[in-house]
Amino acid sequence: MRDYIKTIIEYNDNRLSRLFAVFIQVLIFISIISFSIETIPNLKPQTRVILQSIEVFCVVIFTIEYLLRIYVANHKLKFIFSFFGLIDFLAILPFYLSFGLDLRSLRALRFFRLFRILKLARYNKAINHFSRAIKSAREEIFLFIFITLILIYFSAVGIYYFENQEQPEHFSSIFDSLWWAIITLTTVGYGDIYPITVGGKVFTFLILMIGLGIVAVPTGIISSALTKSVDDKTSK
Amino acid sequence: MRDYIKTIIEYNDNRLSRLFAVFIQVLIFISIISFSIETIPNLKPQTRVILQSIEVFCVVIFTIEYLLRIYVANHKLKFIFSFFGLIDFLAILPFYLSFGLDLRSLRALRFFRLFRILKLARYNKAINHFSRAIKSAREEIFLFIFITLILIYFSAVGIYYFENQEQPEHFSSIFDSLWWAIITLTTVGYGDIYPITVGGKVFTFLILMIGLGIVAVPTGIISSALTKSVDDKTSK
Amino acid sequence: MRDYIKTIIEYNDNRLSRLFAVFIQVLIFISIISFSIETIPNLKPQTRVILQSIEVFCVVIFTIEYLLRIYVANHKLKFIFSFFGLIDFLAILPFYLSFGLDLRSLRALRFFRLFRILKLARYNKAINHFSRAIKSAREEIFLFIFITLILIYFSAVGIYYFENQEQPEHFSSIFDSLWWAIITLTTVGYGDIYPITVGGKVFTFLILMIGLGIVAVPTGIISSALTKSVDDKTSK
Amino acid sequence: MRDYIKTIIEYNDNRLSRLFAVFIQVLIFISIISFSIETIPNLKPQTRVILQSIEVFCVVIFTIEYLLRIYVANHKLKFIFSFFGLIDFLAILPFYLSFGLDLRSLRALRFFRLFRILKLARYNKAINHFSRAIKSAREEIFLFIFITLILIYFSAVGIYYFENQEQPEHFSSIFDSLWWAIITLTTVGYGDIYPITVGGKVFTFLILMIGLGIVAVPTGIISSALTKSVDDKTSK
Repeated sequence: MRDYIKTIIEYNDNRLSRLFAVFIQVLIFISIISFSIETIPNLKPQTRVILQSIEVFCVVIFTIEYLLRIYVANHKLKFIFSFFGLIDFLAILPFYLSFGLDLRSLRALRFFRLFRILKLARYNKAINHFSRAIKSAREEIFLFIFITLILIYFSAVGIYYFENQEQPEHFSSIFDSLWWAIITLTTVGYGDIYPITVGGKVFTFLILMIGLGIVAVPTGIISSALTKSVDDKTSK
Repeated sequence: MRDYIKTIIEYNDNRLSRLFAVFIQVLIFISIISFSIETIPNLKPQTRVILQSIEVFCVVIFTIEYLLRIYVANHKLKFIFSFFGLIDFLAILPFYLSFGLDLRSLRALRFFRLFRILKLARYNKAINHFSRAIKSAREEIFLFIFITLILIYFSAVGIYYFENQEQPEHFSSIFDSLWWAIITLTTVGYGDIYPITVGGKVFTFLILMIGLGIVAVPTGIISSALTKSVDDKTSK
Repeated sequence: MRDYIKTIIEYNDNRLSRLFAVFIQVLIFISIISFSIETIPNLKPQTRVILQSIEVFCVVIFTIEYLLRIYVANHKLKFIFSFFGLIDFLAILPFYLSFGLDLRSLRALRFFRLFRILKLARYNKAINHFSRAIKSAREEIFLFIFITLILIYFSAVGIYYFENQEQPEHFSSIFDSLWWAIITLTTVGYGDIYPITVGGKVFTFLILMIGLGIVAVPTGIISSALTKSVDDKTSK
Repeated sequence: MRDYIKTIIEYNDNRLSRLFAVFIQVLIFISIISFSIETIPNLKPQTRVILQSIEVFCVVIFTIEYLLRIYVANHKLKFIFSFFGLIDFLAILPFYLSFGLDLRSLRALRFFRLFRILKLARYNKAINHFSRAIKSAREEIFLFIFITLILIYFSAVGIYYFENQEQPEHFSSIFDSLWWAIITLTTVGYGDIYPITVGGKVFTFLILMIGLGIVAVPTGIISSALTKSVDDKTSK
């Protein structure tokens, strides 16, 4: 009996186990969408009831799945404290905590429900693969993130000295200027904060010329590490 | 006779067939431009008459071309249900439907007229080439689009918890936050929605540092697949 | 005498000729800066007089240089109608035309003065090198610019149907939507025009996911062609 | 005694020296954060006192460190005028100058305190490594920065002629247009200044199509030079 459940839950090689995996994935998807809908303000009471029913149903299934996974695990404690074991636990925890605790703290706890999305990772090897690529290029990434941070800080201090007197409400301190530096050097450019003095504009130009090259480097390294890692996997 | 038309329409190796191809391409171009002009509000009645005349002329030519293509095809049914056969059909369908149907539904149907632009693809191999490149890198692209989607969702949930209380009109639900996450992580940054709390700004910084590398990866893979595919073609 | 002037003007191998080249480059720079300052509104009369004096001085030197270049050229007509010969001529033409013509047309003619900046190109091989790189990757660049244009057009039509009814003042026709499509797909994102309907936002997300990969491709190809071209030059 | 101090300060191979390095790095970090906090307006007097105490403590330690470094250096003058010698000096200079000078000039001097951040460079090889990569690709970078500058200037002049009459307050001179050209071609797009005429929009489209490829090239070259430099280091 235990071996039979094990083949369904843990492996991915027969029809029933694949059906089970798809079923769980669909449930994760539904619970995430219903979680998103719950955040819409002024929902009708009927909608709330439907969303809560979906919530209860999902949690019941996830709890059964969690208990079965413990049941079939060879090393029960090892599974419970493994990465996916903890995620499975955290995904159902907020629901049970909401009974014993104040309702207002519930909101923040709901965040953990999102870890359910990471359960999708068990079924495809995306995240394992990604973490391996990150690991291989760890040093290079760290190196240029460090340079990027220094550059962002220098940009923030520079713009502070140019713009503080003209726009004290926008560039009120170096922390506000840091926000500007991040949004500008990543080229997001919301437009909520930007230089208006001639000095500030010339400084922005210089910082962008130097900065774009540097900020883009970690991106380039991650991309090439991932592509390389994919190539290696393909050629094997 | 049929063979003679076939050499003009289907091949690209004699003078007359190239002239025919150029003629059809120019017509496609004219019909697209006239379609665009039609959307300008408050056109003069005379302009409308000219645009409609161009429309009728184009549809007549495209219909004749479509019928000729069926006539010269070896497997008529196969051509009709092929990709380009269907596009040729959809490109002329809205015009004929507008007689029998209510005028208001016309507007949405016009969209299909745009498929005419894809007919340009028959004459150069751009799209065939592009789809081959996509196919070769399909798995890698899928993998990182999946990671990108997870990251966008996590960013949306995170910013919702930081900004919802301060800006309930902008970050009213996770769906509004998703819009923010997409526009920020692609570095478009319209400026219609952005964080104002310290927590939200720090979170945006972290998300951008992690996110830019990941979001750029599918782009990098597509680019390299296409360049590689062009190289292979050149070296043959 | 003619040979001596030739060594100074056309070659770059002795001290005097290098001095001459630097002198001309500095003059070009000064004339461009003075041209830029002239566009500032409400200048003092004294400033205008200084700028006009600089203008006269630069044009006199450039005219002498132009005449000398014709004098030393082996094939005078060939030089006059060469790329740099024409640029030298266009750089001084607007000044002389301003005597015989109405003063108001002067403004548009000034634009040609900018071609002086291209004269810098004679002294370093940047532009020659660049045009060679473009030429080698011509076909690939053309291919993906074509796909990019199709995508921009499709995006414009799509957003027009989603946003036209809600924002008739911003998305009034497909031409306005084209402006949106360009600014969004290049990730500039000014924020003067953006979707507000749910359909338009979802459509923007899909377009960005597909589009960023495609729009970045020509950039990638140009970059790699230039880098490769530099490598080839270095290894020779 | 001198040799013992030397092993602690200059080398990084025994426990005490590593402890010393970490201690100095933590101090640099603290002094930078306290410098940033000082710029926040309307601080409480108590906070100011705490920040000043931290400042005094940091400067005392940095001064002792600086004097020790001179003491242990084999060529004292060579150290004082070396890159890191000057940075060490500039990092403590503003504090001592603020005693002898008027209080109002103090503000500008504070800027030099930032040189402290460069002291971090001594402890990891990021900046050395970075400068080597820049040096190896110096010519190529210079070449494309030159082309980028020409393009930015041409864009500015072009948009000035299209937009000046319609938006004299935004595109009042070529210098304002230069600001637009920089923010647009780097795809930051704050949205404080953008074209509204049809001519200006079409011109922006053409400039973006040409410009994105060119502006991205220096970035690409720096990225590849850095990655290559990392590879070389790894393979040794």
